[in-house]
Amino acid sequence: MSLRRVRLDVAYDGTDFAGWQLQPGARTVQGELERIFTRVHDGVRHPVRSAGRTDAGVHARAQVADVLVATRFGDDELLHMLRRMLPEDVRVWRVTGVDEGFHARRDCIAKTYSYRLDLGPVADPFARRFALHVPAAFDAARVRRALDLLPGRRDWSGFTAAHCVVRSRVRTLHEARLHAVEGGCELVFRADGFLTFLVRNLVGTLLEIARGDREPESIRAILETGDRRVAGPTASARGLCLVSVEYPR
Amino acid sequence: MSLRRVRLDVAYDGTDFAGWQLQPGARTVQGELERIFTRVHDGVRHPVRSAGRTDAGVHARAQVADVLVATRFGDDELLHMLRRMLPEDVRVWRVTGVDEGFHARRDCIAKTYSYRLDLGPVADPFARRFALHVPAAFDAARVRRALDLLPGRRDWSGFTAAHCVVRSRVRTLHEARLHAVEGGCELVFRADGFLTFLVRNLVGTLLEIARGDREPESIRAILETGDRRVAGPTASARGLCLVSVEYPR
Repeated sequence: MSLRRVRLDVAYDGTDFAGWQLQPGARTVQGELERIFTRVHDGVRHPVRSAGRTDAGVHARAQVADVLVATRFGDDELLHMLRRMLPEDVRVWRVTGVDEGFHARRDCIAKTYSYRLDLGPVADPFARRFALHVPAAFDAARVRRALDLLPGRRDWSGFTAAHCVVRSRVRTLHEARLHAVEGGCELVFRADGFLTFLVRNLVGTLLEIARGDREPESIRAILETGDRRVAGPTASARGLCLVSVEYPR
Repeated sequence: MSLRRVRLDVAYDGTDFAGWQLQPGARTVQGELERIFTRVHDGVRHPVRSAGRTDAGVHARAQVADVLVATRFGDDELLHMLRRMLPEDVRVWRVTGVDEGFHARRDCIAKTYSYRLDLGPVADPFARRFALHVPAAFDAARVRRALDLLPGRRDWSGFTAAHCVVRSRVRTLHEARLHAVEGGCELVFRADGFLTFLVRNLVGTLLEIARGDREPESIRAILETGDRRVAGPTASARGLCLVSVEYPR
């Protein structure tokens, strides 16, 4: 079987998934995609690799993945096949032939995550799968003061899950901002790489700042000491969404 | 027990409901609300009456209902109780004391329904619960020509479900319009009353017009003959949403 590599641009509602990564006995995005590719390749499995392994409940508007496919399938043909065979909560919206050497995770130079907050007095049932409802006071000015302290190249241990095993916890956060959306706001983080629970721990801490339980400047001590116990709790997965993955050129 | 009447402003994601109206063995919005009111009234049931009995799968941003409650409960107290006890897909966002004679359905003078279409080449997994995906050609100008023929006071038999039992099928459609929304469009219908499947049959017919399978002017024959068989199919419930209910004053 002659093979070529394709890039998949994927969107999913993560609510009913145990995350991206293949796990026995659990419904995962990688699992849904590989099931289809394995079927059309007569049982031969080629791993589907993604730019980021989103956790259980986390969404993606623009995840990027790659996989080897038989050259007999054209890009459009694959797109139609995936559209027909995938469940409704995961959609491949583009299939593009790429160099055989392309690697969705290794080649990625930056990713952007957004975290959506529903700030209405009563949770909006239409937003509940994609936003965390925060009925408490939310002082956007305090949050912005804290966000301004975040960008830069540094060790993120203070905001990283203890179980995150990586060689280095140094990453460059290019951007951390807040903008209003209908019914609430979105926190947006762009970095050259993310660590386990990094965004959710940042958001949990920012929510304490937003309601006045913590000073914006307390962010400095968390960054300097790298002590996870000083930061706030991990915010729910439901507001988190991978919105962009960038590659060179 | 001393009683007073309250108005409830309710939003729900209708996807996992068998509609508004109470049905034995089925999950309904009325059922969820009455379960709570009956509990706080020590087992005494007072019916929750709504402005419109939305069908299975139909959503509401602003349904209006009314119910008798014990005077010992204040409006804010009821709001908090409902917030705590209702499932996530139904939210009461306002509780207001009203005259005992208020009747959500009888007093209502106009209602507005919207029908959302996802016009992207691939269905958006974030919109799938609230929009019908229409991957086919969609000619908005043709749809607008047809919409212009609809408003007025007339018999709507041609667009009404055969099983709709009412004294008269005459209603006044005040407004029928199309506007763009992110990723697609919304069809909006405002009338003094609606009939079973009226909006969904209108939308099914408009979709045939949008893709060129039927002429915009063919609407006239359906209105004049009142023959349901001449109109298009009933569109899925998922795009339909009750967005506003109006009362005098």
